[in-house]
Amino acid sequence: MRYLTGFRLRDGEDRVAGNSGRFLVSGDKTLVLADSRYRLQAQAEAPEARIEPTTYDLAAIWPGLLESVGARRVGVEADAVDHRLWEDLARAAPDVEMVAVPGWVEADRATKEPSEVDRIRAACAVADRALASIVRRIRPGVRERELALALEWEMRTCGAEALAFDVACLTGSDAALPHGSPSEREVCRGQVLLFDFGAMVAGYRSDMTRTLFVGEPTARDVAVYEVVAAAQNAAIDLLSAVARGEHLPVSGIEADAAARRVIEAAGHGEHFGHGTGHGIGLATHELPTLSLVGTTAPLPSPTVFSVEPGIYLDGETGVRIEDLAVYDTGARSLELLTCFPRDVVVVGV
Amino acid sequence: MRYLTGFRLRDGEDRVAGNSGRFLVSGDKTLVLADSRYRLQAQAEAPEARIEPTTYDLAAIWPGLLESVGARRVGVEADAVDHRLWEDLARAAPDVEMVAVPGWVEADRATKEPSEVDRIRAACAVADRALASIVRRIRPGVRERELALALEWEMRTCGAEALAFDVACLTGSDAALPHGSPSEREVCRGQVLLFDFGAMVAGYRSDMTRTLFVGEPTARDVAVYEVVAAAQNAAIDLLSAVARGEHLPVSGIEADAAARRVIEAAGHGEHFGHGTGHGIGLATHELPTLSLVGTTAPLPSPTVFSVEPGIYLDGETGVRIEDLAVYDTGARSLELLTCFPRDVVVVGV
Repeated sequence: MRYLTGFRLRDGEDRVAGNSGRFLVSGDKTLVLADSRYRLQAQAEAPEARIEPTTYDLAAIWPGLLESVGARRVGVEADAVDHRLWEDLARAAPDVEMVAVPGWVEADRATKEPSEVDRIRAACAVADRALASIVRRIRPGVRERELALALEWEMRTCGAEALAFDVACLTGSDAALPHGSPSEREVCRGQVLLFDFGAMVAGYRSDMTRTLFVGEPTARDVAVYEVVAAAQNAAIDLLSAVARGEHLPVSGIEADAAARRVIEAAGHGEHFGHGTGHGIGLATHELPTLSLVGTTAPLPSPTVFSVEPGIYLDGETGVRIEDLAVYDTGARSLELLTCFPRDVVVVGV
Repeated sequence: MRYLTGFRLRDGEDRVAGNSGRFLVSGDKTLVLADSRYRLQAQAEAPEARIEPTTYDLAAIWPGLLESVGARRVGVEADAVDHRLWEDLARAAPDVEMVAVPGWVEADRATKEPSEVDRIRAACAVADRALASIVRRIRPGVRERELALALEWEMRTCGAEALAFDVACLTGSDAALPHGSPSEREVCRGQVLLFDFGAMVAGYRSDMTRTLFVGEPTARDVAVYEVVAAAQNAAIDLLSAVARGEHLPVSGIEADAAARRVIEAAGHGEHFGHGTGHGIGLATHELPTLSLVGTTAPLPSPTVFSVEPGIYLDGETGVRIEDLAVYDTGARSLELLTCFPRDVVVVGV
């Protein structure tokens, strides 16, 4: 919606927007639907589109919309349209062929324009600075939720229009939950403290994870950390060599394997259940995917993705290190977008 | 997902969760899918369910899941499953009949248990108190975004686990955007200031709108305000009479009409483009719907819905007044859940 028309709904707003924001693109026209709540906004954000009034009953106006652009076949984003609506639309205009085109827009979005990279870079800078400025608030006894709120506040009052996603701040064994939420748990000496967070700038998102140590780290935690750091470096080194033209092109599966091999060699293969990375842009997770499954085609370029191996020991500890990288074979470079140190960092002492 | 299994994803998290959280309920079993990132969380939040590992390829495990519960027909939430996935599942298990059951769970959710009403009431109280405590920060020159952040911060540090939705804080002609976002616009004397906001407590949401006046209101704004207030009162009076058994049962269409008639009689019919109200609970918008379209069946009971007429004059001003009401024909009562005055309130002087 936003990528093709300019019209945007805030996160979660799609649940209350009804059919507002749905759009139809023909050879020469773009139609954006907006009920009365969104009409002015749609006119401002999608100035080149024709804004069409809508209600909750899209099927009722569907034949007229198709006729107004002269459509006899229509490609529909089958992974963004629910089955009920698909069936309703098909029934409403039986003479127009509906063709499922899952992933068309997503494939386009995987390669980034310079202006898109700039916005992701700006979002990374906001997040990076925010972590640096709340580090001094970390001390034994402070609660996960308190630190998560502080980090959020810092991002949102220093350059982010919104969060990319809710801040994860997880300490000790909570860090073994790769998508856990901050709780009232207190930060304790000798435990890890994991932050996974991102900012949004001009619609584009960042995503970054740091696992810090509160006071003297345990030997186990440092050992796990070093494996994760080595895994991240292995993937970064490979991708960097590919970008520079010193290595054959690789797929997301191969980029993932570079990190995974290091973790498996250390005996932690089963403790790394997610992929090594994901594309990012208008959405937090988009193409390309760096994981065990996916396409064997070479990674697209220029693109931006995360490199984020992790090791999770249930009930004990968890470590993940995540950075975003601009991968650009044309510019022969792999650029990391965050400055916060990736080495072992001890805080709260 | 949360209503039937207990497993919950934060707002927006569904976009990165893949198939985690999808579930299957049979006569005697509940299965919740969780990839490695969510396994521990699912075990904790859905203790009665069997947690099944999953990947992005749900179709690959679909036949096995169906077989493990002995399903030969399966009802699928057709408005929550995208068309592509529906087709993939149908192909993966051609011998199992898929039956679209849109709205089954939603219909159940429309009537509320006492424990659900309690949580909505608690969320309303958090939001209500938050507005009262930031009122002193309203003065000419303060920006919409600043006030929105202050109100959000107040809710989230004083009892809300999250927002129900992003705070709208809109002044002057911005208030004519029924779903606008706060900008850097400054609050000016003689203009309206509209807040639409809600808190989340134990998963349940509140929703409330107040339109305040900064300094001496214009005659036009007060006149519009009085029409909206009269419209809200008309709907509340009707629903209250129905709940007490002094009026025949009404549908959402009739409840909407009670407010709409007042606005139409004042010549503003075309400036009130949305419905008079919506149910609320685990989602901000759920059944029942109080609007021009919908079912002619009597409103369910006990239920909780908003009553929120508004008048929007493009480029000029906007007024909306919104309260949540517990409608309970068994208890013969319509209870409003918010205390902040609904009269003309002048601030910032």
